[in-house]
Amino acid sequence: MSESTVLRIALAQINTTVGDLPGNRTLAEEAYRKAVVAGASIVVFPELTLTGYPPEDLLLKPSFLEDTRASLDALAPKITGGIAIVGWIEASPAGPRNAAALVARGRVRDVYQKCTLPNYGVFDEKRYFVPARRCPVYCVGPWRIAINICEDVWARGGVPALQAREGGANLMLNISASPYHARKGRVRERLVRFHARELGLTIAQTNLVGGQDELVFDGQSLAADAVGRLIARAPQFMPHILLVDLPLPGATPAAEPPGATGSDEPPGSVPPPAGPLELDVVDLNDLAEELREVPAGAGAPDLTPAGGPAEWISVQRAWPELADEAEVYRALTLGLADYARKNGFRGVVIGVSGGIDSALTAAIAADALGPEAVVGISMPSGYTSAGTRYDARRVAENLGIAFHEIPIGGLFEQTLRDLHPILNDRPPDVTEENLQARIRGMILMAFSNKFGHLVLATGNKTEVAVGYCTLYGDMVGGFSVLKDVLKTQVYRLAEWRNAQSPGAPPIPADTIARPPSAELRPDQKDTDSLPPYETLDPIVKALVEDDAAPRDLLAQGFDAAMIERVFAMIQGNEYKRRQAAPGIKITPRAFGRDRRYPLTNRYRPRAV
Amino acid sequence: MSESTVLRIALAQINTTVGDLPGNRTLAEEAYRKAVVAGASIVVFPELTLTGYPPEDLLLKPSFLEDTRASLDALAPKITGGIAIVGWIEASPAGPRNAAALVARGRVRDVYQKCTLPNYGVFDEKRYFVPARRCPVYCVGPWRIAINICEDVWARGGVPALQAREGGANLMLNISASPYHARKGRVRERLVRFHARELGLTIAQTNLVGGQDELVFDGQSLAADAVGRLIARAPQFMPHILLVDLPLPGATPAAEPPGATGSDEPPGSVPPPAGPLELDVVDLNDLAEELREVPAGAGAPDLTPAGGPAEWISVQRAWPELADEAEVYRALTLGLADYARKNGFRGVVIGVSGGIDSALTAAIAADALGPEAVVGISMPSGYTSAGTRYDARRVAENLGIAFHEIPIGGLFEQTLRDLHPILNDRPPDVTEENLQARIRGMILMAFSNKFGHLVLATGNKTEVAVGYCTLYGDMVGGFSVLKDVLKTQVYRLAEWRNAQSPGAPPIPADTIARPPSAELRPDQKDTDSLPPYETLDPIVKALVEDDAAPRDLLAQGFDAAMIERVFAMIQGNEYKRRQAAPGIKITPRAFGRDRRYPLTNRYRPRAV
Repeated sequence: MSESTVLRIALAQINTTVGDLPGNRTLAEEAYRKAVVAGASIVVFPELTLTGYPPEDLLLKPSFLEDTRASLDALAPKITGGIAIVGWIEASPAGPRNAAALVARGRVRDVYQKCTLPNYGVFDEKRYFVPARRCPVYCVGPWRIAINICEDVWARGGVPALQAREGGANLMLNISASPYHARKGRVRERLVRFHARELGLTIAQTNLVGGQDELVFDGQSLAADAVGRLIARAPQFMPHILLVDLPLPGATPAAEPPGATGSDEPPGSVPPPAGPLELDVVDLNDLAEELREVPAGAGAPDLTPAGGPAEWISVQRAWPELADEAEVYRALTLGLADYARKNGFRGVVIGVSGGIDSALTAAIAADALGPEAVVGISMPSGYTSAGTRYDARRVAENLGIAFHEIPIGGLFEQTLRDLHPILNDRPPDVTEENLQARIRGMILMAFSNKFGHLVLATGNKTEVAVGYCTLYGDMVGGFSVLKDVLKTQVYRLAEWRNAQSPGAPPIPADTIARPPSAELRPDQKDTDSLPPYETLDPIVKALVEDDAAPRDLLAQGFDAAMIERVFAMIQGNEYKRRQAAPGIKITPRAFGRDRRYPLTNRYRPRAV
Repeated sequence: MSESTVLRIALAQINTTVGDLPGNRTLAEEAYRKAVVAGASIVVFPELTLTGYPPEDLLLKPSFLEDTRASLDALAPKITGGIAIVGWIEASPAGPRNAAALVARGRVRDVYQKCTLPNYGVFDEKRYFVPARRCPVYCVGPWRIAINICEDVWARGGVPALQAREGGANLMLNISASPYHARKGRVRERLVRFHARELGLTIAQTNLVGGQDELVFDGQSLAADAVGRLIARAPQFMPHILLVDLPLPGATPAAEPPGATGSDEPPGSVPPPAGPLELDVVDLNDLAEELREVPAGAGAPDLTPAGGPAEWISVQRAWPELADEAEVYRALTLGLADYARKNGFRGVVIGVSGGIDSALTAAIAADALGPEAVVGISMPSGYTSAGTRYDARRVAENLGIAFHEIPIGGLFEQTLRDLHPILNDRPPDVTEENLQARIRGMILMAFSNKFGHLVLATGNKTEVAVGYCTLYGDMVGGFSVLKDVLKTQVYRLAEWRNAQSPGAPPIPADTIARPPSAELRPDQKDTDSLPPYETLDPIVKALVEDDAAPRDLLAQGFDAAMIERVFAMIQGNEYKRRQAAPGIKITPRAFGRDRRYPLTNRYRPRAV
């Protein structure tokens, strides 16, 4: 033991796929091998490594649990020369456990079972898992290693405290699948650093990366030392093996690590699990030689896969965080790219109107999948202005995506003629507006059926909230990229994206400058039906994301009638959202699994 | 105290609406008044009386909890002359509690808080509520009254055992919102009778009645005596006040009550809540005079509301259970009627094809809402046979519903012409089939938009499981009546319905006899794409409802390739179901909130 040697651990943030037992096992095996070659003694994988996260009701299938066990058994013989911490599901007589296997010398040596089960927001872990009570600390040479899982480290005074204070842990490994919302990484970093300092030990957390339906996992695995300083941080939104070199216990800590300052308070802690936890100190000293000492600051061999990300492995580095718009944009591109890839789509098709939402969606798609995988279809009607029609084509040209134009005027007229026997001569209303949107939806779906492209819905969170969209019309699609992006944020993202290509901004200036319109009747403007977005968005955010009451908003200066109207629109359009395509969560509360409202719901509180 | 007098309690199974705080309060107040006039001393309402069940994420709004408290405070002054047990939500520093208020003499005297929170199937109570530990027993005169809530009585050895064994309870009142699936009432009855006998006390359970989105609550409130005999049972699927006369403690039990025999084992019990429960014996003897003794067998005044159900109040009666098909049919009519009524729809519109699914849906709609509220639209194409086209009209005539026929051939041809620039001369495939279904969907939605009718989707559970349906086509609709009914059960229900009108069966014999076909290409039959329904339905049921693995089914004699194909179809069509209309749960596992699958899901186990 000397100051010049360290223990090298690897935080392997891999991009797993739900249900892909063989694929996930292969990913873990390859990452393990690379990390060990690069000098790592312990390789830490994300939560539910082998099954992907979250498997939802697959967990109710006994055969799925059996097959997961078989997958762990198939992986274990490959784990030699080091230790792997692998997330899986352990069946037990009381029910399934969300578990982390400590694997070494070709077999499972011990299993930690999650004690703190999140059951809020997008999480349903109490539906699937039974909580455990056992908090192991593993003694290996000079190390006292605590292992726990995701939510365990969000509970103040729970598992981590017992492992540290009574078990004497000097290294804590947390395996996580913590989904993204804007700036969530900072919350996790503050949390890990707070606990590291409070407990006086090193904490290293591996977080899952990749898109899974509505969720994006942002990676950004990290480690903090015993005084709460950041030691290392992996990049966001990409698979990565972050090597972290830890001074041996008793050694003087290295000089000021990058970006280190204390953190004063923990972010939103959850209560610890009810009932007594049981410490279990486990002797694994027979594995002491797996924990090799390597020279501090040793480099890693270049293991970047051909065609892979520029840097797939790094040593003791604090990767920079992305700025606000960049971070959200990356979340959207990864969410879309993974939904398409993991579900076997080679391309996407988008109805490009010339408006801002479809233009931004097309830009995200081109960035996520490559322009060659994106098709834009413009479907002008008699109400489409020459400017928007021109801008639709321009967006496609700017992005280099395929483009078709199919006017819908003839089909609209024919539909009105054929429906005359039932609609008679009733005056035009929303029926005729929706018909146009549905003819467009039908065209996009026909293209999708014929060529296998995934249709992307282009609605934003504001529209989806107040129901300013047509079910089976502009809402058609297998995936809805901007579903959690408020309209005002759509503009910010569009401008940010244009600024990345200053020579050739993809989104036309006119598209950004033109007052928003659905163009479904003559001279229509969004403001005919809705308050201006600068007013509407804060109300939507307050009601949807913050659970504000109408009476709370009155105090903020909004008009009582407008608040009640927006509240009623949100409640009254739940039926549209129930049939909406899934979209990518980027806020603390997205529509979808994150927010579960009844359709039949007569709650209509007054603002005054 | 004598043998000739009894305590009369009322099980008031009312039909509440989620979020309708004033409406639910009014319902409770009216039922309370009627029950007291009829001699009842205690009126027991269903779980979450004041909010409706389940309020889902409304429970996360602090203002909703405040408004619920205000509603209870407004109700309490109306409770005089007796005791009411009212379900509501109590806010607490630890979080909201699913609660039952004991209200008497105009104020809340005590509150029981649910200890056993279900978090499986359609239930998410651990998302919303914190469990309690306190098990009160109320001493009022000779009575020792235990109160608990729904799941509490499903846990063997939990709350009821403590209240009975240590608290000496002689009467247990359970307020429930137990959702329907076929023959669920028998499960509840077996459970209540088992616990009553095991604990040696009378148990009376009020169960909610009415439809709420995907759920139907079937009422069928009941009471069992201390030896596990059924004392009384309310009717299924209708609001009702069931008066139950209980001999005073110490009196000899009445002669053999109707339908009474012992029950040997409890149905699927849940584990009791973790951690110690605390008994609390509460002296409420000041309320002893509220518990009036009434003459045994006293009749009740006729309180049937004008135009209401034939019998809205009954005394000590064991209402008969409906037979299998009748029960499911009633569940479907109540589920549809309440979805339409509670969401303000005056009528429904159905695409009637001449096939069995739309014919049964139309029959259910006519029975649920009256034929004058139902519109059928037939939309034949060139692939529609003369027979089905004729049958579509006949179904409408038989049922006395409005009928329109809109041929879609012209629109289909025009669409193909207009789409030629993008579809080119590619050979016809599912694209053209889906286009026809989507044109029909568009027509139904146009009618709905113009006249305000709710569109009913007509797909059955088998189709929805294997994806034999068109998203935005025949899947359009606000409500999907047969979504949880397997195809073979559709036939059984159709024949049952016809048998109810032997003189004029509504569903044409040809519709039942003709081999099923989507009629989207020449001479198409369902069996071109699917195994025969007699084979397919048991596989779907095993995989979806019973979580069987493909390898389990092999042992039952099904063909390995067929099992794997059906498994893959079910998994691969989750994206359609995610955007499907809600439907009525009639099986232990329905699609929707009851079954939560990932879209991105590569789990494809082999049968061999």
